[in-house]
Amino acid sequence: MLKNVRIVLVETTHPGNIGATARAMKNMGLAHLYLVNPQRYPSHEASARASGADDVLANARICHSLDEAVAGCGLVFGASARSRSIPWPQLDPRQAAARTMAAVDGVEAAFVFGREHSGLSNAELDRCNFLVTIPTNPDFASLNVAAAVQVLSYELRVAALEPPVAAERNEPLASAEERERFYHHLEQVLLELEFLNPDNPKHLMRRLRRLFNRVELDCNEVNILRGILTAVERRGLLGKHAPQ
Amino acid sequence: MLKNVRIVLVETTHPGNIGATARAMKNMGLAHLYLVNPQRYPSHEASARASGADDVLANARICHSLDEAVAGCGLVFGASARSRSIPWPQLDPRQAAARTMAAVDGVEAAFVFGREHSGLSNAELDRCNFLVTIPTNPDFASLNVAAAVQVLSYELRVAALEPPVAAERNEPLASAEERERFYHHLEQVLLELEFLNPDNPKHLMRRLRRLFNRVELDCNEVNILRGILTAVERRGLLGKHAPQ
Repeated sequence: MLKNVRIVLVETTHPGNIGATARAMKNMGLAHLYLVNPQRYPSHEASARASGADDVLANARICHSLDEAVAGCGLVFGASARSRSIPWPQLDPRQAAARTMAAVDGVEAAFVFGREHSGLSNAELDRCNFLVTIPTNPDFASLNVAAAVQVLSYELRVAALEPPVAAERNEPLASAEERERFYHHLEQVLLELEFLNPDNPKHLMRRLRRLFNRVELDCNEVNILRGILTAVERRGLLGKHAPQ
Repeated sequence: MLKNVRIVLVETTHPGNIGATARAMKNMGLAHLYLVNPQRYPSHEASARASGADDVLANARICHSLDEAVAGCGLVFGASARSRSIPWPQLDPRQAAARTMAAVDGVEAAFVFGREHSGLSNAELDRCNFLVTIPTNPDFASLNVAAAVQVLSYELRVAALEPPVAAERNEPLASAEERERFYHHLEQVLLELEFLNPDNPKHLMRRLRRLFNRVELDCNEVNILRGILTAVERRGLLGKHAPQ
């Protein structure tokens, strides 16, 4: 299952951290590194700190958005030390690793790590099924990003070495893009229904994302939900256009 | 229990690794860093990579030998990726952390990390109760030393957060010095007995160390064993000096 895991670094400032991440990944048997708008890359410093994991760096995919980096992923975990105004479903690294290994064979999983100084934005977190929080000293909570990758990759390796558990589900999980299309569709319908007020949206869409991200929608479920949305839209059109 | 844990770095070459170690330790709530003959220290690079864990660096104790660094420790773990000609009792990081937390309250534990390029020598490993091996990709097994400290410190923190288990023992563990004195005493007696041939010692003392390190001798047991050795010595003297 480790071959289906990607590590995503968002807007990393220090190239040394990219190199150290590549090394940590390769040590633990991970190969797929995605870099969203790295600030200084490629860089000699990244290669020096990779210390032999040059293949991971050479194969790293540079992306222009988080959506691009998590495309195709059924499970997206966002590493975060910060608590959020809308608390997001939260796992510790061991739980996240177990969940990844329990997913249906072939599901791609992404672990997303934010900027050195400010982590992940709320909009980025909205793309994640779960927040993963490494337990830390509350007085000194901010891990180096490569150190955080090391801990998560280590837990993934340990989980991968354990005897396989029966998959929890038999439908493939919906991909990140399918989820985004569903959220977009849902938002359109809620606007049409005037349930969502564009001038005062409050946190409605974020709360709905949190709900549906948490249940790890499979493809079939997304199809059902979108079918319902389409049915609602048709009723709306009929209502508007039907002779009074 | 985290307050009784020390991290020992032996002859670290790169000061950046010392700084990153201090940061990893503080993130996980560890405070006691021991540096055995660091190659370049203090250093600006160490402080930069410590990234706020300056107190851990400032309080680090510089030692001239591993014996000095593990003095007073009832449990000594040596981090090692290499397999050894005489296999040493081996734990994974989770087992080592659990064992540390299960030790009698007040026991000091040391986790010892070797040189960047060559790890720990056999003589250094002889001071360790257990070898701790982080599971890694067999094709790329050598972790950065600060990354290895991060994994072990993380497992210690996770274990410390778990509900306490009943201590396995009620006697304090023998300290590293008490064990060394016992091994020295044992060796003397074996030489006197001509069981140990100084011209062809084979691996006798290493095998005996492995055995007694593995059982985690407590103070009372060391006293009993040394009492036996003393009794053997007296018999030898009596035999030599008694009239024929």
